[in-house]
Amino acid sequence: MKNKKVYGSLNSAATLKVLACLFEHDLDFDFVPIDLEAGEHKKPFLSMNPFGQVPVYEDGDTKQFESRAIIRSMAHQYGKKGEELIYWDSREQAVVANWIDVEDHHFEPPALKLNSELVIKPKKGLTPDEETVAEAEAKLAKVLDVYEARLSKFKYLASDKYTIADMLHLPNIQALMGTQTKKLFDSRPRLSAWCTAILARPAWIKVVEMQQRAQA
Amino acid sequence: MKNKKVYGSLNSAATLKVLACLFEHDLDFDFVPIDLEAGEHKKPFLSMNPFGQVPVYEDGDTKQFESRAIIRSMAHQYGKKGEELIYWDSREQAVVANWIDVEDHHFEPPALKLNSELVIKPKKGLTPDEETVAEAEAKLAKVLDVYEARLSKFKYLASDKYTIADMLHLPNIQALMGTQTKKLFDSRPRLSAWCTAILARPAWIKVVEMQQRAQA
Repeated sequence: MKNKKVYGSLNSAATLKVLACLFEHDLDFDFVPIDLEAGEHKKPFLSMNPFGQVPVYEDGDTKQFESRAIIRSMAHQYGKKGEELIYWDSREQAVVANWIDVEDHHFEPPALKLNSELVIKPKKGLTPDEETVAEAEAKLAKVLDVYEARLSKFKYLASDKYTIADMLHLPNIQALMGTQTKKLFDSRPRLSAWCTAILARPAWIKVVEMQQRAQA
Repeated sequence: MKNKKVYGSLNSAATLKVLACLFEHDLDFDFVPIDLEAGEHKKPFLSMNPFGQVPVYEDGDTKQFESRAIIRSMAHQYGKKGEELIYWDSREQAVVANWIDVEDHHFEPPALKLNSELVIKPKKGLTPDEETVAEAEAKLAKVLDVYEARLSKFKYLASDKYTIADMLHLPNIQALMGTQTKKLFDSRPRLSAWCTAILARPAWIKVVEMQQRAQA
């Protein structure tokens, strides 16, 4: 048995973020699928995460349940010399922290809503709500304008190196690339180049392959 | 002129969190009030925060605009030997990071809604919406149950020492203590003791005094 375990779902963006981080650090782990449709993330899962959400991450004796907190500490604990996805200097790391919170507070809310309308609903045979989509796309477009401007100064969001701030965007971007919302990314050249670069990370491709195997 | 500046509002919980952190670290700063009612946080403020929100924090050449990111880096950069509000060990800091994200994702959303209904609306002569209040209180109560259980194991949320994870709760708790929602805190003994302890931090009292002077 490996000493790292992820309890989660391949349909959960937060779970996919943690998996991407594990692959980035070449860490060996067990994945324990939690069936969200069947409500498995509620009791007795609550003993691991009192808020009843996935993922939960175990590393030896340590248990964590907030995905961004898991990723931050993993990057600090297992960062590969010269390839760290964070910074050790507090001023430099502050910029990474800033863009982590931008993803959390600005990017993810409309992105998750669009995934729910344009990816999840159609899979269940439901029709997306046009008004909700239009509203979320308008919100996301404003965020992407900020990203386009930011990416004119730096290769990645926080700096010229790939950090966990970029990585956190992967699951939602991957899902939106198969929807009408792709146009919001394609129409912004720097953003589009950034998407291509981050989606091509070998660690991310391993996550996508996990999803494909599960769906096969 | 001091080399640290906070552009913000004493009516903004995010601004108050950053001020509390500055006082905790005995840092000298200038406070530049931004009039939210007059829309001052939109252009030309946008050149400092592209999302048009307060606070913005300047420390020398560094500009930051996400409050939790500001606080994390301040605690790492200026932590007083033996009294740090964070941990240097990545496993220990992981637990702090976890509870920072709990405040962000679980505590603050209903707490802000209650502040808006029970503090801000009455100040403007408006009546709180009972249904919204009931819903937010039900959500908050569930979160506070988790806190009560957590505080039976540790003196503070992340561990037995006061950390930025506790500090982030101060503005919303302070505001709710003057409302009917106080009962949700009073009815949970460990939570109630924790509130008393954190509200008594000298750094927090300085923030409250700043607010009182501004209102006088």
